[in-house]
Amino acid sequence: MAKKSKESESISATPKRAVGNQATRDKTLEKITELGRSVAKAALAESDPFVDVPTRTISNTSYNETRRLLEMGDATMRRNLFNTGQARKFMQTVLLSKGCKDLLEARKTLSLRGMYYMSLHSIPGTKEKTFDDQEESDGILEDLEVSLSTLRENLHLFAKKRGTMVGNITVVDNGDPIDCRRMGTGGYAIPSICEPGVVQFGKCEAKFVLHVEKDTVWSRFNEDRFWEKHNCILTEGSGQPPRGVRRLLYRLHKELGLPIYCLLDCDPWGHYIYSVIKQGSINLAFESERMAIPDAKYLGIRSGDFARCGLSDDVKISLNDRDIERAKQIAEYPWFVKKKHWQKEIQLMIRNGFKMEVESLITKDISYVSEVYVPERLKAKDWID
Amino acid sequence: MAKKSKESESISATPKRAVGNQATRDKTLEKITELGRSVAKAALAESDPFVDVPTRTISNTSYNETRRLLEMGDATMRRNLFNTGQARKFMQTVLLSKGCKDLLEARKTLSLRGMYYMSLHSIPGTKEKTFDDQEESDGILEDLEVSLSTLRENLHLFAKKRGTMVGNITVVDNGDPIDCRRMGTGGYAIPSICEPGVVQFGKCEAKFVLHVEKDTVWSRFNEDRFWEKHNCILTEGSGQPPRGVRRLLYRLHKELGLPIYCLLDCDPWGHYIYSVIKQGSINLAFESERMAIPDAKYLGIRSGDFARCGLSDDVKISLNDRDIERAKQIAEYPWFVKKKHWQKEIQLMIRNGFKMEVESLITKDISYVSEVYVPERLKAKDWID
Repeated sequence: MAKKSKESESISATPKRAVGNQATRDKTLEKITELGRSVAKAALAESDPFVDVPTRTISNTSYNETRRLLEMGDATMRRNLFNTGQARKFMQTVLLSKGCKDLLEARKTLSLRGMYYMSLHSIPGTKEKTFDDQEESDGILEDLEVSLSTLRENLHLFAKKRGTMVGNITVVDNGDPIDCRRMGTGGYAIPSICEPGVVQFGKCEAKFVLHVEKDTVWSRFNEDRFWEKHNCILTEGSGQPPRGVRRLLYRLHKELGLPIYCLLDCDPWGHYIYSVIKQGSINLAFESERMAIPDAKYLGIRSGDFARCGLSDDVKISLNDRDIERAKQIAEYPWFVKKKHWQKEIQLMIRNGFKMEVESLITKDISYVSEVYVPERLKAKDWID
Repeated sequence: MAKKSKESESISATPKRAVGNQATRDKTLEKITELGRSVAKAALAESDPFVDVPTRTISNTSYNETRRLLEMGDATMRRNLFNTGQARKFMQTVLLSKGCKDLLEARKTLSLRGMYYMSLHSIPGTKEKTFDDQEESDGILEDLEVSLSTLRENLHLFAKKRGTMVGNITVVDNGDPIDCRRMGTGGYAIPSICEPGVVQFGKCEAKFVLHVEKDTVWSRFNEDRFWEKHNCILTEGSGQPPRGVRRLLYRLHKELGLPIYCLLDCDPWGHYIYSVIKQGSINLAFESERMAIPDAKYLGIRSGDFARCGLSDDVKISLNDRDIERAKQIAEYPWFVKKKHWQKEIQLMIRNGFKMEVESLITKDISYVSEVYVPERLKAKDWID
């Protein structure tokens, strides 16, 4: 049984309640103010106010093989006020900038939906709403992230929370030391915003992170106390991990040097989850710099496991046309296309004609996955990347 | 800042690792064994083995006005082995009984999907699978729950985990004391199984529970430290709360005597969430006895809040035909039909022609909901039930 660490005790003596880090907040506020100033300056000079927004398209995204990161190019789009096709978006950008400024100054955070409501009103004297729906405001907020070259989290905005953690680490969340060695069956709910101003790392004995796709599989590993036996941290992201989980994994990897091993389903969706953890999502390339983990390893489930683990035909789930199409797209991703292992893996899955879930290992034994499969793979360094 | 309570320290000195409670497990095992014995006895006597399954239909469900609970009637369905229309279901019932027995004896828990896989195989010499899909196995597991008059949780089965908690309470989860006063921005992830054998209550100063619909709203209340200022527990169920959350709310209410206040959207979905917390779901009436909280209060959002809080037209979301149909159905539920307040509430929503989300209050102020709306309603005891 792990004892409560002295380190976490000493941190707990100085609780910290303001959300976020003062320096980051000041920097973000300065960027927003600068954007406002440039708009005001143009207006006062009686010229056409504008905002330059980096283009978030695939054509302006490229994979840097040396850095092994997705990067955005230099292309920008100018958004003018005196252009009937751009005026609405220009005004929305300024309006949401103000919303984020208010949020930062109030030292509060808000969901994307909350920010939509906060900025929602009808233009006086008209029936024109500032936003037709949340989708419109979400898009502008992404523009704002890249225009200010910051992260949504630094604008104090968050999306739905998902994902849990247990293991040999103490984290300090908003001043509260949380001993992840003693989180029972439920675990610590990973926050939406995992920036250093909110979540810090206390004492950590863990040597690696096992990230699993589903909370139900996570429960199997937690119940079998895998993290205790193998001295690690156990996380899950309830499917495609939200940004909070990805940022936390990134920081555990970068700041504490922990390898990240992923246990995902053997299907295009599992491969895509791995791809996002590893490189980021293509249409949000600007976030990769601070979230992508090119060194993350894919432990399984792999197509060869069907024969290797002696699974029965019952666990086969047929690939449909959409699966095959997705699998081929993923094989073409620049970080997979030159990897022999990944090409073989995806080809074998397509040739097999079926996918498999992590849970299929339960047909061998309830705890086969946590007591045989993963320990054997880890010991043999048997993964792909 | 709340200090770590002495009570939780003393509990933490005797950690407890086996899942569940010995007496409950023994009782459930005895019930399964009894079922097996009756089948074996019939077989040995060369008569037709059968299982009697209480009928889970609306016609066999009634609302007991005195107890204010949904109850199942006495109707049962006999499932025979020597009946081509019933043989498959009979064998599935026996197979899953064995699966649950194995699980209880191994002192492990499993997801519903896990149990499906564990019991999945092809009948030797045929291409017949024991189950075509998980839906088939889930249905039989519900039959098993009622046949054994137990809860799924006592069969060590669980569904996807959702929901988080913070507040002035320490819970002991599988031997780990969890101080919900010091859970940062993330919170304690409420387990899927919240039976007394897994989750116990330590020191609790809280005087009530505020249950909100969404995790994003929960974050607002947590960030504003509502639970500290108002001495309460704050929970969320990410929409329709899963059984773990409902069972925890029930136990907080029954065992600690805490009133449960619900803050949900003003729409048929919000009303339905309240209805399930209050009375249980109609097609799973057998669980109501141990999950329903007839005394739970509905704080808001209410239709009258549009005028009362001076909200703008922008927050209105039009009701569609399906919404109106659902609203009328809910108004006919036996626990709502004689309640004037509920009839007025639903009628006003339909007359208004629009629904509203809790987040609509953000148009007033970021923290209006946590610093004005809920405190005012609580102070005035202004809720409906």
